[in-house]
Amino acid sequence: MTERFTPTPEDKFSFGLWTVGWQGRDPFGDATRLPLDPVESVQRLAMLGAYGVTFHDDDLIPFGTSESERESHIKRFRQVLDATGLVVPMATTNLFTHPVFKDGGFTANDRDVRRYALRKTIRNIDLAAELGARTYVAWGGREGAESGAAKDVRVALDRMKEAFDLLGEYVTEQEYDLRFAIEPKPNEPRGDILLPTVGHALAFIERLERPELYGVNPEVGHEQMAGLNVTHSVAQALWADKLFHIDLNGQSGIKYDQDLRFGAGDLRSAFWLVDLLETAGYEGPRHFDFKPPRTEDFDGVWASAAGCMRNYLILKERAAAFRANPRVREALRAARLDRLMLPTAADGLSGLLADRGAFEEFDVEEAAERGMAFEALDQLAMDHLLGVR
Amino acid sequence: MTERFTPTPEDKFSFGLWTVGWQGRDPFGDATRLPLDPVESVQRLAMLGAYGVTFHDDDLIPFGTSESERESHIKRFRQVLDATGLVVPMATTNLFTHPVFKDGGFTANDRDVRRYALRKTIRNIDLAAELGARTYVAWGGREGAESGAAKDVRVALDRMKEAFDLLGEYVTEQEYDLRFAIEPKPNEPRGDILLPTVGHALAFIERLERPELYGVNPEVGHEQMAGLNVTHSVAQALWADKLFHIDLNGQSGIKYDQDLRFGAGDLRSAFWLVDLLETAGYEGPRHFDFKPPRTEDFDGVWASAAGCMRNYLILKERAAAFRANPRVREALRAARLDRLMLPTAADGLSGLLADRGAFEEFDVEEAAERGMAFEALDQLAMDHLLGVR
Amino acid sequence: MTERFTPTPEDKFSFGLWTVGWQGRDPFGDATRLPLDPVESVQRLAMLGAYGVTFHDDDLIPFGTSESERESHIKRFRQVLDATGLVVPMATTNLFTHPVFKDGGFTANDRDVRRYALRKTIRNIDLAAELGARTYVAWGGREGAESGAAKDVRVALDRMKEAFDLLGEYVTEQEYDLRFAIEPKPNEPRGDILLPTVGHALAFIERLERPELYGVNPEVGHEQMAGLNVTHSVAQALWADKLFHIDLNGQSGIKYDQDLRFGAGDLRSAFWLVDLLETAGYEGPRHFDFKPPRTEDFDGVWASAAGCMRNYLILKERAAAFRANPRVREALRAARLDRLMLPTAADGLSGLLADRGAFEEFDVEEAAERGMAFEALDQLAMDHLLGVR
Amino acid sequence: MTERFTPTPEDKFSFGLWTVGWQGRDPFGDATRLPLDPVESVQRLAMLGAYGVTFHDDDLIPFGTSESERESHIKRFRQVLDATGLVVPMATTNLFTHPVFKDGGFTANDRDVRRYALRKTIRNIDLAAELGARTYVAWGGREGAESGAAKDVRVALDRMKEAFDLLGEYVTEQEYDLRFAIEPKPNEPRGDILLPTVGHALAFIERLERPELYGVNPEVGHEQMAGLNVTHSVAQALWADKLFHIDLNGQSGIKYDQDLRFGAGDLRSAFWLVDLLETAGYEGPRHFDFKPPRTEDFDGVWASAAGCMRNYLILKERAAAFRANPRVREALRAARLDRLMLPTAADGLSGLLADRGAFEEFDVEEAAERGMAFEALDQLAMDHLLGVR
Repeated sequence: MTERFTPTPEDKFSFGLWTVGWQGRDPFGDATRLPLDPVESVQRLAMLGAYGVTFHDDDLIPFGTSESERESHIKRFRQVLDATGLVVPMATTNLFTHPVFKDGGFTANDRDVRRYALRKTIRNIDLAAELGARTYVAWGGREGAESGAAKDVRVALDRMKEAFDLLGEYVTEQEYDLRFAIEPKPNEPRGDILLPTVGHALAFIERLERPELYGVNPEVGHEQMAGLNVTHSVAQALWADKLFHIDLNGQSGIKYDQDLRFGAGDLRSAFWLVDLLETAGYEGPRHFDFKPPRTEDFDGVWASAAGCMRNYLILKERAAAFRANPRVREALRAARLDRLMLPTAADGLSGLLADRGAFEEFDVEEAAERGMAFEALDQLAMDHLLGVR
Repeated sequence: MTERFTPTPEDKFSFGLWTVGWQGRDPFGDATRLPLDPVESVQRLAMLGAYGVTFHDDDLIPFGTSESERESHIKRFRQVLDATGLVVPMATTNLFTHPVFKDGGFTANDRDVRRYALRKTIRNIDLAAELGARTYVAWGGREGAESGAAKDVRVALDRMKEAFDLLGEYVTEQEYDLRFAIEPKPNEPRGDILLPTVGHALAFIERLERPELYGVNPEVGHEQMAGLNVTHSVAQALWADKLFHIDLNGQSGIKYDQDLRFGAGDLRSAFWLVDLLETAGYEGPRHFDFKPPRTEDFDGVWASAAGCMRNYLILKERAAAFRANPRVREALRAARLDRLMLPTAADGLSGLLADRGAFEEFDVEEAAERGMAFEALDQLAMDHLLGVR
Repeated sequence: MTERFTPTPEDKFSFGLWTVGWQGRDPFGDATRLPLDPVESVQRLAMLGAYGVTFHDDDLIPFGTSESERESHIKRFRQVLDATGLVVPMATTNLFTHPVFKDGGFTANDRDVRRYALRKTIRNIDLAAELGARTYVAWGGREGAESGAAKDVRVALDRMKEAFDLLGEYVTEQEYDLRFAIEPKPNEPRGDILLPTVGHALAFIERLERPELYGVNPEVGHEQMAGLNVTHSVAQALWADKLFHIDLNGQSGIKYDQDLRFGAGDLRSAFWLVDLLETAGYEGPRHFDFKPPRTEDFDGVWASAAGCMRNYLILKERAAAFRANPRVREALRAARLDRLMLPTAADGLSGLLADRGAFEEFDVEEAAERGMAFEALDQLAMDHLLGVR
Repeated sequence: MTERFTPTPEDKFSFGLWTVGWQGRDPFGDATRLPLDPVESVQRLAMLGAYGVTFHDDDLIPFGTSESERESHIKRFRQVLDATGLVVPMATTNLFTHPVFKDGGFTANDRDVRRYALRKTIRNIDLAAELGARTYVAWGGREGAESGAAKDVRVALDRMKEAFDLLGEYVTEQEYDLRFAIEPKPNEPRGDILLPTVGHALAFIERLERPELYGVNPEVGHEQMAGLNVTHSVAQALWADKLFHIDLNGQSGIKYDQDLRFGAGDLRSAFWLVDLLETAGYEGPRHFDFKPPRTEDFDGVWASAAGCMRNYLILKERAAAFRANPRVREALRAARLDRLMLPTAADGLSGLLADRGAFEEFDVEEAAERGMAFEALDQLAMDHLLGVR
């Protein structure tokens, strides 16, 4: 195996405790793996070359743990972080596993559940801040409905806004250096989930009291569950300066949430996503939110985790070679990507309106005949991806 | 047939000229119907009880028409509007049929095509304003790509913003009482289209220079082509005060764009959408953007158009009865929709933090045991939809 | 509530123990309901008007139960069947919950797992026969793969055939009056499942040693998870004399397996399916394989179960009225459904070849102009479904 | 560019005239390219290294051509075939473009349309046989419906069977060495198409009078439009000895029919499909049924056609290397693919029933603990695909 695809902390790869620690419980089957001690997860991930580890409150401290036990869990975790050098760039809240959240957290119909969800979140925000996290992810997996009258969506969005505004107020008051990243998902476990795509989440953020505190955490597979081009959605998030974090994994089309290792599923999409992240100057963690298939034992778990990073590095090398190839640059010009960079009307509205060449004398038929040369360009990309160039 | 489902102009139903006028050309087949004279379309729609008619520039004035012929087309159209009393609440631009737009209009890689697209749009905005339209729809069906390097999405969004800002500047300068409604679609005819969902469009609008001038025009089938709950997306648009227009039709799941008559496809979704529009105080036109199947002759075309309106009126009556039924109100309370309306923390952040009942002393297990009573509520809705209550 | 939609055993409604007994464990959440005693399920279902109850071996007798305990479970079950009059028209095997089946049952790569799966199945076939079941359902939910090399599909189909042939041999030797119904599903819990649609299962059956013993058990939602028209698939199964059983439920498009109550999800599809079953003379049980949403307590569970039957009965009444309406018959003639019933070439190949009117002198343009009158027909169906006619 | 990926006729690549000849007309846009003379297509494809060319009757001889002109079209085509050495391995009928087929060909409600469709097919079968074709493809793209009552599916299947039986009788009588390959598609241009998947088509064939004459022609994108694993469907067709032909192209998930060049869309799926075809001994043509995007001029068309073949050859090399790698063989053993090849019960039913180790004494927990080692195996495949091994 080529050493050049061996990760190091400089690559900024991070993993959720719940990923390698997933026991393989699915809608039709019981756990196939034993629980994994978070300490072991951190040690293993460090050995594999990871940079960071992330967690839901309940991943680290089982739901219902007493206050004193809680401290000992945290202490052990800190120790292994210190020992391995792994950082905690992000944390998040589990507002979905316990049955109390069956109708949601921030938008549950029951007010007391909403208050509880907020307090549970705030408690973990304190821990996240203590551990140095700079991003707090919010996935509202239970905020949704299976039937039409069960949720008044406009009212639910009021409650969602209220919740995020309160959290924003809290981190501001506490002077935490922490921003929120909202993670969209179209469905599963709810029939329809609120803020189903990156677009819906970006739009929602603009209605918050402190919009600057909030961005998105797109997950590859979630956007693909809506049949969307995840690279396009991530690009729009970057365009809006809102890509605060990213969840990398794999998905084979529109179906249940697969959480395959990164690179599995839609490989060409993974290539373009890496190309975008690397060329756009995204500096956050490359975070893997995947589930090693429940067919695997722990050897398979670590093989799967290593594969995520390896695939990222291969794709990164390939994308860089693609961008550096003079023939590619020529092909990009042939496809007029350079023209797309020109303002359409540097001459302003009045210039545009006065320009007879723009309309009255524009030779539409001539313009229509120009080929865009996209197929040759895309084949060059394919060649680079496949390593035959 | 019950008279109560016979439409009148007060119902505010409008149709695009391109809907009843669709000739049945599809990717695998030639036209099955002759062209329809816009004048006849207006007359027929008026007879059926419609309120308004809408158009793309090229629907009314064939592409390439000379200036003098153009005036005569417009004159005939005005005459039939006057004769029938139909209004023109909306107009839009065809930036997709002619091959010059094969790589897009506002975001085509070629700058001259972009300039042409803007001028073509501006010309039709003038006509729209003259005819009294208050909404100008922009569907960027060709703004997208089939392959990864063919479009730099962030740059394309810059061009899209530039285009909409120029158009906003234009209508402001002209003092037109006209607002823009962006129509999202995930794909088809491009592999992926920019601003693929209502969410993406809402988010984009916030980055424009005059965001107040822009809203969305959700189309039922377009949102459903991404597997999304269209009622949820429309609700989010309403929540953001951005539902400027709506395109009603039918779609049977995630596949090619079907444009079935309203009510066909996902009937329950249609019910909830009508319920939302009618209870949220949406006052714009109920606009049908459908295609009578190419199996139909003109009798079928008018039957299909009549069916759109009839189904809306049936669903409107059923939704009203649902909301008025005391048992439904009781069921809504049993499902705690009234609690969702309460602020989560009227006591503010400090109150929430100080409330031990919210967290430390909250009886999670008790709360988890409460049933949400959604199935009984949903069955009541089904009963009302089916007219058995 | 109208009494005419109250079910009786004559309606032949049956439920799986696992449906009302589902505890609400999903990929992201723990159980929200306590286990339900099968005896209580039978009593409740009987009170609601059901005719039959079905089970996986492990629903009735928890996995790992000792032989003596097993007998007492069976005895209690028999007693409640006797007391309530409910029958057991179908049984099936759980080859998916226990981790031993993580790579499948009949097609697991491990031979000993395959043997175990067969023996587990045979043991429950004995019980099914004892309890009078006439149909044995086989859902191979774990027979599949997430990655390309993990399963050699052709070899796996050999193993699948071997398994079904052995089971056919067994029931033949035992002289059980029992036939098998294979239940297809495209994915979930595996990335791709073998025999993913009704078509694939029907084709597979033709390669078995005793094809007459095997048919299909289409599930509404499973076929819809592949975006297919479930009524069409059921029609093809009926056409092939292979509709041995059916699983009724609801699904909202292509996403995770929802198992909504019958009528929820795609209501128009449910209407056409009931129309087909009732007009095609299907005499088997109307079996509900649904999951009451995990938001519900037990009141919600029973409301949901009752809703399944109620919706079937409403749709049955509506479909019958549709077929009986003289205007509908006229519309069917206008759409030339009567012509579809005529043989295309009662005159045989030679007659067809000799008929100049069929080709050389056929007036293609005239034929092309005929409208099919499908929209008027479909609106009549809509009117009947909505009860406005 | 590496010469090893340059195609030769030995690679058996064939193209439809309608592929490179597609003018770019789509549901929202007019043609972007001029018609292509079939003679030029054949010459160009020969220069690119193709082996064969295929056609619909109307591709070669425009619909409505007189008999004498027809002969001259055929003559020119024969001449260019002779000159270039290209063969015609397959032909097919266009039963979808002309409006007369708006409700189908073999299953149109109108009997005279059905007769015309059969005669049109038979005429082209004669030509196909003359030109040496061995396979006659039947894609029933218009056989379907948009609404529930418009087609009685069981009756339509009777008509479909009648049509194929007549065609089978015809080729038998004529002693043509020609077999039929049915091409399934789930939808588009009809809302739902009959025989929507490879499975449905395979099942249908078993009900024909001469089943040995019929197989399937799976199209990559068609199967993927139903979210199915196309490699699995092709494997089932091979398992049934029914893979008579194959249509290679690309598709990006569940959406409209994209017909991207082979390799585009789901690249990993393409890899596994090539692996299957090459290891299963499929000897038919590798036929490309793609559409060069309408953004392209003719340079782009030929680049796209060349890309199809190039990608196939790259994937073929990579798949061969994967299968030859000793580490892969070891990984396959670790994943127990060798065990899947063993009969489950070489000892027969009685042996299985008597084997206490198979059930009573089987250590379920031990078996459940075994990891399947699929992730390591899949990463090896990824490494080979990406050329880093």
